[in-house]
Amino acid sequence: MTLGLEIILYYSGISNVYMQNTKGRLYVVGVGPGHHDHMTFRAKQVIEESEIIVGYDTYVSLVEDLIEGKEVYRYPMTQEVDRANQAIEFAEKGRIVSLVSSGDPGIYGMVGLIYEILADRKWKHDEGIYVECVPGVSSLNSCSALIGSPLMTDFAVVSMSDLLVPWEIIVKRVEAAALGDYVTVIYNPASKKRIHQLKDTKDIFLKYRKPDTPVAIVKGAFRDSQKIVVTTLEKLLDYNDMLGMITTVIIGNSSTFNYNGLMINPRGYKSKYELVPETTKSIN
Amino acid sequence: MTLGLEIILYYSGISNVYMQNTKGRLYVVGVGPGHHDHMTFRAKQVIEESEIIVGYDTYVSLVEDLIEGKEVYRYPMTQEVDRANQAIEFAEKGRIVSLVSSGDPGIYGMVGLIYEILADRKWKHDEGIYVECVPGVSSLNSCSALIGSPLMTDFAVVSMSDLLVPWEIIVKRVEAAALGDYVTVIYNPASKKRIHQLKDTKDIFLKYRKPDTPVAIVKGAFRDSQKIVVTTLEKLLDYNDMLGMITTVIIGNSSTFNYNGLMINPRGYKSKYELVPETTKSIN
Repeated sequence: MTLGLEIILYYSGISNVYMQNTKGRLYVVGVGPGHHDHMTFRAKQVIEESEIIVGYDTYVSLVEDLIEGKEVYRYPMTQEVDRANQAIEFAEKGRIVSLVSSGDPGIYGMVGLIYEILADRKWKHDEGIYVECVPGVSSLNSCSALIGSPLMTDFAVVSMSDLLVPWEIIVKRVEAAALGDYVTVIYNPASKKRIHQLKDTKDIFLKYRKPDTPVAIVKGAFRDSQKIVVTTLEKLLDYNDMLGMITTVIIGNSSTFNYNGLMINPRGYKSKYELVPETTKSIN
Repeated sequence: MTLGLEIILYYSGISNVYMQNTKGRLYVVGVGPGHHDHMTFRAKQVIEESEIIVGYDTYVSLVEDLIEGKEVYRYPMTQEVDRANQAIEFAEKGRIVSLVSSGDPGIYGMVGLIYEILADRKWKHDEGIYVECVPGVSSLNSCSALIGSPLMTDFAVVSMSDLLVPWEIIVKRVEAAALGDYVTVIYNPASKKRIHQLKDTKDIFLKYRKPDTPVAIVKGAFRDSQKIVVTTLEKLLDYNDMLGMITTVIIGNSSTFNYNGLMINPRGYKSKYELVPETTKSIN
């Protein structure tokens, strides 16, 4: 079964069919880490094309300069279902809507809820509203760019939020990531009400990895508030003041090393390569 | 220990110190999946700023329109170490260099080799050349955007390439991902010489997941050659003709479902929410 036909057509330059029809369009847009530099051209393009902007207040603020004169609906953090339904309803009325979020809406983001609701409403890909997920630079991309090269090898991505997933399942995943020697990226590591998870995670990892395994804590990547610490697994909990909803934690695997405060993962087995070629050595 | 000081300064708008010095600059740039729409503004900016462009021939071709008049060094696929050394050497001579790649250089990309070589050369963050990794939309971001919402939950990312990592380690990771009920993104699933890995992976997953678990195969995401199939774990090997170096495979977890050819992962436990609010139901 082949899907995504309209997207294929779009990228082949014959998108007019879609532009001409009277159906609404819903863009689920990731604007990246928060600094415009790291937004994609497509994200800017669809926001500019949209008549209506829907989103969590903080995310809408990230694109304030792009949305002047548009209908803007700002929501508090907890009302995801309302936001998603409103965005869909506007598109169903024939409007062009961007549902904006930071990072990548495809990674723990709003596109899931959109498709879940559309499936409940028996939406059909070829007959219903046009839906496009615009991917963006997610925390795993932005944070790893700032701290060295931790994701040169296999990695696992785990959210510590147990609001929608039972803690037993998260523990099972943490255990599997530690066992599989995965570099591990932790989204939503902690909040004021939720701090035990990171302690449990540290204890699980200490069963499999050395206490001096490099760990990075990145708060507000690429924002004015950016703060970065590269520490060790053993000292992970010494930086509790940095934890919160815009913080990401990256735990190294057995090969990760710290070089001058950068967290580096070798891409493979160094012995296979002469990293600095002989010719260069003789020149230097 | 706090690191990335110059990056913090840069984003606070006081980057002049770095612009004024005579040291070279090395940008390791991800241009996204290959279509300019999904490149970030920062990627375009640093390529335009650069005097020299270094990269694998195919990647350089992706930005052909941005590099007219620059010194361009195109490499065949296998010469990563040469490419990395050349880019570093130009920067050490005071030049401004972009080492370009598709996707995100921080995910199985060139930035790892750059830092490994710099560490070998005793490079110092505050005294040596300026190095910046420009994150981009990687295959995991682009492919998931095209096939629904598979990454709404915890996921593992595994490369099947055993050129630099022994197959026993990869098998251990595949086993851990299957055990942990991770949605699993597979980079480099197969090449002409390397086809048994995906078969072994399928067999391991079948020990933990149902044969009808949704699986997506995405070739050339957002390129003219784009081809997408959403199938099942059982039928994963029926599409061998699609496998190759620009193909990514995503295997669902126990909650993933296929809705009209889209691979959807619920964000949590549906019972917690009324997805279509009562007020909307009565209007419809």
